[in-house]
Amino acid sequence: MSQRVKVKQILADDRTHYAVIVKGWVRSFRNNQFIAVNDGSTNNNLQAVLALDSLDASLLKRITTGAAISLSGEIIPSLGKGQRVELKVATLEILGDCDPEKYPLQLKNRPSLEYLREIAHLRFRTNTFGAIFRVRHSLAFAVHKFFNERNFVYLHTPIITASDAEGAGEMFRVSTLDPMNPPLDVDGNIDYSEDFFGRATNLTVSGQLEGELAAMAFGDIYTFGPTFRAENSNTTRHLAEFWMIEPEMAFYDLEDNMALAEAFVKSVIGYVLENNREDLDFLATRQEEEEKQKPQAERSDMGLIEKLEFVLNNEFQKLTYTEAIEILKNSKPNKNKKFSYIIEEWGADLQSEHERYLVEKHFKKPVILTDYPAAIKAFYMKQNEDGKTVRAMDILFPGIGEMVGGSQREENYEKLVKRMEEMHLPVEEMSWYLDTRRFGACPHAGFGLGFERLMLFVTGMTNIRDVIPFPRTPKSAEF
Amino acid sequence: MSQRVKVKQILADDRTHYAVIVKGWVRSFRNNQFIAVNDGSTNNNLQAVLALDSLDASLLKRITTGAAISLSGEIIPSLGKGQRVELKVATLEILGDCDPEKYPLQLKNRPSLEYLREIAHLRFRTNTFGAIFRVRHSLAFAVHKFFNERNFVYLHTPIITASDAEGAGEMFRVSTLDPMNPPLDVDGNIDYSEDFFGRATNLTVSGQLEGELAAMAFGDIYTFGPTFRAENSNTTRHLAEFWMIEPEMAFYDLEDNMALAEAFVKSVIGYVLENNREDLDFLATRQEEEEKQKPQAERSDMGLIEKLEFVLNNEFQKLTYTEAIEILKNSKPNKNKKFSYIIEEWGADLQSEHERYLVEKHFKKPVILTDYPAAIKAFYMKQNEDGKTVRAMDILFPGIGEMVGGSQREENYEKLVKRMEEMHLPVEEMSWYLDTRRFGACPHAGFGLGFERLMLFVTGMTNIRDVIPFPRTPKSAEF
Repeated sequence: MSQRVKVKQILADDRTHYAVIVKGWVRSFRNNQFIAVNDGSTNNNLQAVLALDSLDASLLKRITTGAAISLSGEIIPSLGKGQRVELKVATLEILGDCDPEKYPLQLKNRPSLEYLREIAHLRFRTNTFGAIFRVRHSLAFAVHKFFNERNFVYLHTPIITASDAEGAGEMFRVSTLDPMNPPLDVDGNIDYSEDFFGRATNLTVSGQLEGELAAMAFGDIYTFGPTFRAENSNTTRHLAEFWMIEPEMAFYDLEDNMALAEAFVKSVIGYVLENNREDLDFLATRQEEEEKQKPQAERSDMGLIEKLEFVLNNEFQKLTYTEAIEILKNSKPNKNKKFSYIIEEWGADLQSEHERYLVEKHFKKPVILTDYPAAIKAFYMKQNEDGKTVRAMDILFPGIGEMVGGSQREENYEKLVKRMEEMHLPVEEMSWYLDTRRFGACPHAGFGLGFERLMLFVTGMTNIRDVIPFPRTPKSAEF
Repeated sequence: MSQRVKVKQILADDRTHYAVIVKGWVRSFRNNQFIAVNDGSTNNNLQAVLALDSLDASLLKRITTGAAISLSGEIIPSLGKGQRVELKVATLEILGDCDPEKYPLQLKNRPSLEYLREIAHLRFRTNTFGAIFRVRHSLAFAVHKFFNERNFVYLHTPIITASDAEGAGEMFRVSTLDPMNPPLDVDGNIDYSEDFFGRATNLTVSGQLEGELAAMAFGDIYTFGPTFRAENSNTTRHLAEFWMIEPEMAFYDLEDNMALAEAFVKSVIGYVLENNREDLDFLATRQEEEEKQKPQAERSDMGLIEKLEFVLNNEFQKLTYTEAIEILKNSKPNKNKKFSYIIEEWGADLQSEHERYLVEKHFKKPVILTDYPAAIKAFYMKQNEDGKTVRAMDILFPGIGEMVGGSQREENYEKLVKRMEEMHLPVEEMSWYLDTRRFGACPHAGFGLGFERLMLFVTGMTNIRDVIPFPRTPKSAEF
């Protein structure tokens, strides 16, 4: 009796001479004899070998790229090059045909990433996107594993929210009011008291504030869920819908926070290196080929695997914003006016070009910047004694810039309220948040990491639309 | 040198006579000497013992329920009853005061669940909600663990979607158009081409259709993300925002699907029983006390732990919808007209009362019903040869009714399109979905499970608002 076995398992198995059933899709068929079968369990194909003249011509014709097939037979040592074992086919059944005249992935030339974005419902079937989304799975699992092992509580913070707590900018409105005839109040404004939730609601931009509520009970929590920005940015780095990881820890100061963030990033990258080596090797080769198209000067000095191992094996460089500004002010590209934004004085917001200079040129390793000017950071960050900086930290990565943003939080009620008033935030509406500072407040800290940013780094892809299954961007919400 | 140790670890540790730092919140303080400290890592408190007269009266006054404290001292065998070890306090620091006059959880009487819902930002700090949300964490982790071990790919399906594929009913509109002055097209309708995504968009009601796209490449995938229903149902079983788990498997038929679903439910319940026994014991006691308030006839015959173990240890009963209708037609409550909806003939949609009768009275174990009438099921389910039923399955649980809903999918292009036309679904718009049946189609199946339904079952809670951190319901979107 044979049973269905996944290709990954067959290729990893030392045994030969055993019966199996294999189900998957045809990746290629040559010489009317050799089928490369893929079932999605691994990037590698299983070679299935037909006995010559064993099948009808009409059946042979239906063995086309993309067709779904079921095979039974015996796993034997392979005589050909390139694989250790192969499947000697006893029976073949076509489960679903795939018309080569119509199948978009039939193209002999490698389809472009742009074209594959248009057929995102089929791109999973390519080697590149197979590898990318298996890596995405592993990276997500590694996130949960890391926090579970450390006794963190996974918290599902709300997606629909009435609070614009961060004032973080443009949000998506969520409503069930009749858009043609919305009810109006006495002042002639939309009467959201008649809306589904009895108030105006939006899609969340962050779960942090709700995360803090739970951290004050469980100690250590994390979120991992979708967040939204209605920013009209059509770039390779922005999505309207993306996934964020936001841990929040009671009794942590900034030092603890930095140590956790560094351990976290290293742990999940290490997990993927260990568990998805074949996918990463494929993506490394892909990136290498892409690099060859670039002028010598723009090529990166490290391959993908090398870059990931480099992050694993180096302690992140810690310095303050103030120290970074000094380095940048005196840097060549600043003096030669090569930066688009010249750093002239303390207080300047750092751009991606500055972050990348620090990481890629100056320190040549990931950098953690701390103690930013209060004026360019969020209201909830702990105020330093100097009266002008806050206990913020950003982790900067090669090629990416900011990978992690976090801070110790201001736990002092009076200082926090004063800061909120200065920033014109609705203190009254946020009394639930302020209760964490009224009742049993303690030093606490947390950080946020955009999952797709991490995916870009780990896969070596350069367009954020290629690391999320169905990207949402301005003027596009396909599938 | 001592370092911060979590209460859970101290209580699990066999050792005594070692130095620790403990940080957490005061749960109670009695005799000016005994502090029950909780840090959220476990439902259990650590008893911290002050040497008499070791502290100032002014400091003693600040040791109030809810206050955040840091303690150093030595773990020693406890002389008192109820705990094996205790902390002999050397130093105590108040990190954050908690004014007993104002703290809502200061109440001597146990606060009601209704009241705690109003202060959902603080309810995490109670024993009940501490246990519930630690269980929620474990259950979520068990979901990922189960699928990861089986080589499934975790897929983040889109939250914002332009498709109303299921026709599943009321959806939340997502928009950035000016609600007071929306742009109109030539016909005087809202011109969604000017909206953020260039079309009308909604919050997803299911990730299944996108999941099928990925299953046709990876074989086995699952989703675990938020889904939404704009249903105006103010019941103990409905949420506007909830989390769904939706696995989808290529090359699976209905039998495989049922086997996976049963293994899945048993696996995650088993995980929580193994890893959260203290939380479950607490919730079991809570439920027992609640049951005592009920009339004898309404009390359940099983305790919480017993019920969970019962599900683990019994094979689910499989029968067809047609067989179930026969049982129900001949049942006492049907004949005596005790059902609100009397079952008169084949084709009737089953209500929760019927599902619970089958599970709780007739079979006394979880039941899997299969082969429902096509008319009461979704368009994508595989059509049986009889021309009137489909390869659907629902798993019914005691106290809950439907826990899992799934089916083998119709993989035949022509049959699927015909069914969509009968149901007036937009065939043209859904050509991306139909491509899975055009190119390399294969038998496949999947199911969906509402995570909060599972949480109700596992925690023994009866109101769905109590098993999600911040419930979204009609007229309510607090925090």
